[in-house]
Amino acid sequence: MTFSHIDDTGAARMVDVGEKDVVRRTAVAAGFVGMSPETVGLLREKALPKGDVLNTARIAGVMAAKKTPELIPLCHGLDLTSVDVEFEVGEDRVGITATARASDRTGVEMEALTAVGVAALTVYDMCKAVDKGMTIEGIRLVEKTKESAPS
Amino acid sequence: MTFSHIDDTGAARMVDVGEKDVVRRTAVAAGFVGMSPETVGLLREKALPKGDVLNTARIAGVMAAKKTPELIPLCHGLDLTSVDVEFEVGEDRVGITATARASDRTGVEMEALTAVGVAALTVYDMCKAVDKGMTIEGIRLVEKTKESAPS
Amino acid sequence: MTFSHIDDTGAARMVDVGEKDVVRRTAVAAGFVGMSPETVGLLREKALPKGDVLNTARIAGVMAAKKTPELIPLCHGLDLTSVDVEFEVGEDRVGITATARASDRTGVEMEALTAVGVAALTVYDMCKAVDKGMTIEGIRLVEKTKESAPS
Amino acid sequence: MTFSHIDDTGAARMVDVGEKDVVRRTAVAAGFVGMSPETVGLLREKALPKGDVLNTARIAGVMAAKKTPELIPLCHGLDLTSVDVEFEVGEDRVGITATARASDRTGVEMEALTAVGVAALTVYDMCKAVDKGMTIEGIRLVEKTKESAPS
Amino acid sequence: MTFSHIDDTGAARMVDVGEKDVVRRTAVAAGFVGMSPETVGLLREKALPKGDVLNTARIAGVMAAKKTPELIPLCHGLDLTSVDVEFEVGEDRVGITATARASDRTGVEMEALTAVGVAALTVYDMCKAVDKGMTIEGIRLVEKTKESAPS
Amino acid sequence: MTFSHIDDTGAARMVDVGEKDVVRRTAVAAGFVGMSPETVGLLREKALPKGDVLNTARIAGVMAAKKTPELIPLCHGLDLTSVDVEFEVGEDRVGITATARASDRTGVEMEALTAVGVAALTVYDMCKAVDKGMTIEGIRLVEKTKESAPS
Repeated sequence: MTFSHIDDTGAARMVDVGEKDVVRRTAVAAGFVGMSPETVGLLREKALPKGDVLNTARIAGVMAAKKTPELIPLCHGLDLTSVDVEFEVGEDRVGITATARASDRTGVEMEALTAVGVAALTVYDMCKAVDKGMTIEGIRLVEKTKESAPS
Repeated sequence: MTFSHIDDTGAARMVDVGEKDVVRRTAVAAGFVGMSPETVGLLREKALPKGDVLNTARIAGVMAAKKTPELIPLCHGLDLTSVDVEFEVGEDRVGITATARASDRTGVEMEALTAVGVAALTVYDMCKAVDKGMTIEGIRLVEKTKESAPS
Repeated sequence: MTFSHIDDTGAARMVDVGEKDVVRRTAVAAGFVGMSPETVGLLREKALPKGDVLNTARIAGVMAAKKTPELIPLCHGLDLTSVDVEFEVGEDRVGITATARASDRTGVEMEALTAVGVAALTVYDMCKAVDKGMTIEGIRLVEKTKESAPS
Repeated sequence: MTFSHIDDTGAARMVDVGEKDVVRRTAVAAGFVGMSPETVGLLREKALPKGDVLNTARIAGVMAAKKTPELIPLCHGLDLTSVDVEFEVGEDRVGITATARASDRTGVEMEALTAVGVAALTVYDMCKAVDKGMTIEGIRLVEKTKESAPS
Repeated sequence: MTFSHIDDTGAARMVDVGEKDVVRRTAVAAGFVGMSPETVGLLREKALPKGDVLNTARIAGVMAAKKTPELIPLCHGLDLTSVDVEFEVGEDRVGITATARASDRTGVEMEALTAVGVAALTVYDMCKAVDKGMTIEGIRLVEKTKESAPS
Repeated sequence: MTFSHIDDTGAARMVDVGEKDVVRRTAVAAGFVGMSPETVGLLREKALPKGDVLNTARIAGVMAAKKTPELIPLCHGLDLTSVDVEFEVGEDRVGITATARASDRTGVEMEALTAVGVAALTVYDMCKAVDKGMTIEGIRLVEKTKESAPS
């Protein structure tokens, strides 16, 4: 067992995906921003009616997914066909789920995870004036699928 | 109590920091990537001797800190004077601590948090071939200070 | 009378602003997207209640203002202290006004104009499925001010 | 009739183009920068002989077309095969026409429109020292075509 | 004989590659940073054991290759499938070799050359505190190949 | 003697410049693209009259200088006040000189060197259809100055 991004001499490298088939691929990632119930209350009352806090975080997540190869040094550029970012406001948290799709040679999990991470940081940024104790938690891959044949 | 990034009509906005003093500011953020002890073992044996996994994640974190205003929609550009990213490899995790410093009108916590988030995503990317169950956890502000007088 | 960006030999250049004072500067720019009354109706009914079309365009405009020196070849990077983008939905148009503020050596009009331009392109992008005849018009500087003394 | 970028709940989204065919697509967009005849005269006399004002704006337009998915939040990355930006200097204006071509799943009109918009902003930037009354007008799609079969 | 990036009127343009086949393409470029034997000695003793100077330069080179169309105005975006950057520490120099691979319509030599150039600049940056006389030399294309048939 | 970008444990780091004075700083860098006399001849005849090859390279160099902290991992963002890129067409080469100026806490040599490097790569790109044997040579710092007192 070995790390795909480390070669025999221990040096970091970008994996060559040139021999892989172009197939449709999907990845779903999730995570959440933990916050006080008071912050959630304010968010529901002042920010959610118009939707701007969550839409701003959604746009940040979608734009970050497109920037993944610029942020994660050894990621390939991907032909993303869609990115969705959804929120679920709980009692003491804002849950975030991102779905990324591509027709390409390699998986899109880093795009979905990056969308969740940057959407979470944006929620944090927009709520930090009222809550100093927020944390970003549970960022993980939920599902990863690909079509069996080249499209 | 109100959100600084939402104006009276509920619209998202960038806060005007023009009246604030330029002072030296520091923020420390932390978080970790949870992984199996086997992955940690491989990381110690194959990747840590040469340091490339963690150095790649460090570079990604530093570069992401510099990109914060490009990633977080309502963040200001800051005059960053330094960014440090450090790792602590535990039994079932890689801990990440980032320190950002600036001489500017507004705090640098988003830069430190973004460095942690992107360093964590990079560790995830480099280990994902051997561990499908990693999670990114506990991203939070640890400390935020500023000098009392303009420098 | 001469072009500041063209030197004596006719070559393009970036003006040296090193001798100018750092003062607070503001610029306001405006423009509009002309569209059919039917599109305006749909926008009011389906997209405005939640605000996502206009908030997405607002975020795009703010982020573009921060990218101005990356887009306009001979523009200086500026220490932007705030950017605001506002919309006014008329009978056959969406009006856009952007205000940019900076404490720097040179004016912020290009930042305000770029915010208007990219917000307009984003409105166009989000409405183009229902209206093939939109035009972007009247992008201009409305006001430009600076404080008389260094701040 | 509905907005493709707004889902059933009113949230902004990136349209999934994964099922569309990869075909050759072309879009032509146009617009102009209105300016005083005196500015046009200076442009002809001092800047046009060497071509630097217009070539700088051309380069800015081409580079902006490549940045479209970074600027327009819900645009897909496209496999651009060419971008051309042309100018026509009139009596009281500089006309701009941009042609973008791609082999991809979705149209290239936003790339052509973005090239025109940023080329216009660059002309504005380079002439603003001599003309305070310029406006950017008439940015619109002129033509959009695609091949009928996948290439 | 003529320049592909200059049209009949002498204007700069991006070549239309839409009619070219998508085939696998490889380019290898090289260059070196000349430095004093003392700097090489320090590099071997203090920086090479852990590998951070060269790994930082490697990461910078890989990331720059992905940014080539953003840096070189008339370059097309390419579907890069891998980028490798390798170093050879000589007596008075650090040699750099970069290999770029893509499945696309046009060659990848600019990506390989850009990787070498930015890796060299990064080595320079990291060693400049101890050596004021370094030079970057011999950046050139070493090899360029493509498969004969579409993949 | 030690590397400023490597800490005591051998890890890469961004130097903290927070204690340094903001003074006016200038750096001049140079380099050249070696090419065949035939290519120089074509460049003079077909491309130089209108200036587009060299202006395109100049614009690429200026824009790259502004991107230096994005390209060179441990570079600070600088408050650039001007960047100039000049060319001298010789018998078998195009010489490039870049001058960068800033009012900041740290030197601007990486900005000047990056401008030269990317301008050279752009000349290479625009001439590569007619000359397969070009090399980029002699990229070095020519001069670096700073004012003695804070401005």
